Amino acid sequence: MKILVINTGSSSIKYQLFDMERHRILASGVAEKIGEDISILTHWNVSANGEDFKKVEEGVIADHHEGMDRILSLLIDPEHGVVGDKSEISAVGHRVVHGGETFHSPTIIDESVIAAIKENIPLAPLHNPSNLMGIEVAGAIFPDSPQVAVFDTAFHQTIPMESYLYAIPFELYEKHRIRRYGFHGTSHAYVAERAAEYLRRPLGELNLITIHLGNGASMAALKNGISVDTTMGMTPLAGLVMGTRSGDIDPALTFFLADQLRMSVKEIDDLLNKDSGLKGICGSNDMREVIRKKDAGDDRAEIALKLYCYRIKKYIGAYFAALGSLNAIIFTAGIGENSPYIREHCCQGLHKLGIKIDAERNKKSGKEIREISLASSEVRILVVPTNEELEIAQETEKVIEKIL
Amino acid sequence: MKILVINTGSSSIKYQLFDMERHRILASGVAEKIGEDISILTHWNVSANGEDFKKVEEGVIADHHEGMDRILSLLIDPEHGVVGDKSEISAVGHRVVHGGETFHSPTIIDESVIAAIKENIPLAPLHNPSNLMGIEVAGAIFPDSPQVAVFDTAFHQTIPMESYLYAIPFELYEKHRIRRYGFHGTSHAYVAERAAEYLRRPLGELNLITIHLGNGASMAALKNGISVDTTMGMTPLAGLVMGTRSGDIDPALTFFLADQLRMSVKEIDDLLNKDSGLKGICGSNDMREVIRKKDAGDDRAEIALKLYCYRIKKYIGAYFAALGSLNAIIFTAGIGENSPYIREHCCQGLHKLGIKIDAERNKKSGKEIREISLASSEVRILVVPTNEELEIAQETEKVIEKIL
Repeated sequence: MKILVINTGSSSIKYQLFDMERHRILASGVAEKIGEDISILTHWNVSANGEDFKKVEEGVIADHHEGMDRILSLLIDPEHGVVGDKSEISAVGHRVVHGGETFHSPTIIDESVIAAIKENIPLAPLHNPSNLMGIEVAGAIFPDSPQVAVFDTAFHQTIPMESYLYAIPFELYEKHRIRRYGFHGTSHAYVAERAAEYLRRPLGELNLITIHLGNGASMAALKNGISVDTTMGMTPLAGLVMGTRSGDIDPALTFFLADQLRMSVKEIDDLLNKDSGLKGICGSNDMREVIRKKDAGDDRAEIALKLYCYRIKKYIGAYFAALGSLNAIIFTAGIGENSPYIREHCCQGLHKLGIKIDAERNKKSGKEIREISLASSEVRILVVPTNEELEIAQETEKVIEKIL
Repeated sequence: MKILVINTGSSSIKYQLFDMERHRILASGVAEKIGEDISILTHWNVSANGEDFKKVEEGVIADHHEGMDRILSLLIDPEHGVVGDKSEISAVGHRVVHGGETFHSPTIIDESVIAAIKENIPLAPLHNPSNLMGIEVAGAIFPDSPQVAVFDTAFHQTIPMESYLYAIPFELYEKHRIRRYGFHGTSHAYVAERAAEYLRRPLGELNLITIHLGNGASMAALKNGISVDTTMGMTPLAGLVMGTRSGDIDPALTFFLADQLRMSVKEIDDLLNKDSGLKGICGSNDMREVIRKKDAGDDRAEIALKLYCYRIKKYIGAYFAALGSLNAIIFTAGIGENSPYIREHCCQGLHKLGIKIDAERNKKSGKEIREISLASSEVRILVVPTNEELEIAQETEKVIEKIL
């Protein structure tokens, strides 16, 4: 079975085609700058003869429909393509950012699902409209393949009321669904499953803290394998220090910026989402560069790193308290998988919680799941490479198997 | 030595007169609704014959100067008063809310100190102007008594950069001093000192978590007796769920309320400060009433309490991680001293952190410092009655002893 996974942004379509029997990527790529003067389509696949086939097309891609058409042409290209005909694509899995309270699991897309995703647009005004556009275009181009929506928020729909409610007027929750939703759900779910396999324990018996550190970053507390808390909130702004996002602040900062510095709400929104985080403190949102700067003696880079790790460490403690006991901590995503420095500093001084990192094992790099705790560490510490696209493909497969 | 402690609000003056040798309150009271149609002055003192003297005066108090004059008249009243002449008042200690980064300790007030408190008005636009008014009025009425400012923020000036910086553009800290300050400093300091005495250990050897739960609420992490983190931020809005304040939220809620519900920044400020917290969730900001409602089966009251305790529990975990090890947890202020229910639910399920509350000891009420942990609890749990006014008096005494 072949499944196409699509992540549609306002001017981009990212895609991966999976061979589900062999858990293999057949093709991947991205169409960018759609609708702009020069669009770029970067494509890679394995040809029939087993060789890599790469292609970069520059030119005008007027809209997402044209973008998806071009992607299809590359996939079915008679010479280099990986599928003979589009009917070989059994299903299309879509990443959808915000499922609100409507969606607790991946769902076959029909008119009522599209309507519900539309209803949740106020919760994710930047993302859900693009995701809907991707669904519409893929539905037109692959009319015979089931379309499945996999939501970033769905995994966290198990968190209890004391974790998801804010202490604001209850009517704001009842009428406007203002609450914590959490994101990165496919990643937290994926690495938790891989960790359970590695630890040879049923996921349902494990208390885990999953730490997803990419350009966006979030943590989740999993009790018996189920998400019971997460650092992101109604939006992806809350929680950890990120590349350009502030994470948690005193909510009254907004009032200070508006009253004293005469900033508009839009300007404050941009400030906290685009000019804050690591970038705000030390001028760079690229973790490798921040660490290089720190090594070169840059004070701001050093303090940015301290903030970054201290915030994570506090959440490890908070989630330890929330869970009552802890089997493992999992680091994942770009920074979590590749930065020994960050992992070490997040885990420092936590011996009393039974968390002991092995400095030597932590330094080794790798592409596979690996353990970086000392043998004496009560809490196992794992590095688990995430694969959100594969998780979306697998979730899509599960959903369509029920209807086939 | 007699010291008068004053806490001036925009339309009120709270006062207590202390006999420092005997650590005794000689008089206390409050002038309220100053400048309104009917003002109220409620006064109590111990008369010369040892009997309680109480008086409630209703009438017009035009301004703070008149209010302070009336208070003085009651204190020196020939028949019932507690001092023969105002010269017996050795010093006046003022609670000042925001000392910014200028003040790390209590300070004799002179022109430069007044100027510095003025400079910090942008950080506490509601409080510092009232405090300054109190300083001016007391200076005029007690021209020969030294005036001392004791800052709510000063105790937390020891917290390190990774705890006090927000992950926002660094220039906002450099130019506008946007950072975490923390409040309730006199209370956190006072109960930590009392706890050290009770535990018969030098404060400088103790790692403590102090939990001040009044209508405002905050926690502090003390490493070797020194504040290294606290839940309130640049303003008293951040952190715990409070009577009417939200505490921590996704900062993007403000953008949602402004964009989708067309609320102004001022309305959002009021919403989060005055209509949120316990009141927002269940309609009451009086903890006793919230607990009564919960006992009567009110779902909203129950969820408000769950939120309230869960937030505290997470911060206990976070501060445990920040400190690395913990000697004691201290509950104080109205709710912390008087609500066994809250204390129990904040400490539940924390055995793995060495925190074990004794259900029976926790239920006993009292006015004195007391221990409520099990003998087997590695972390001691204490209830320590706070006394911010006495702390201000003692700090004032320390400062003026240096100059006498």
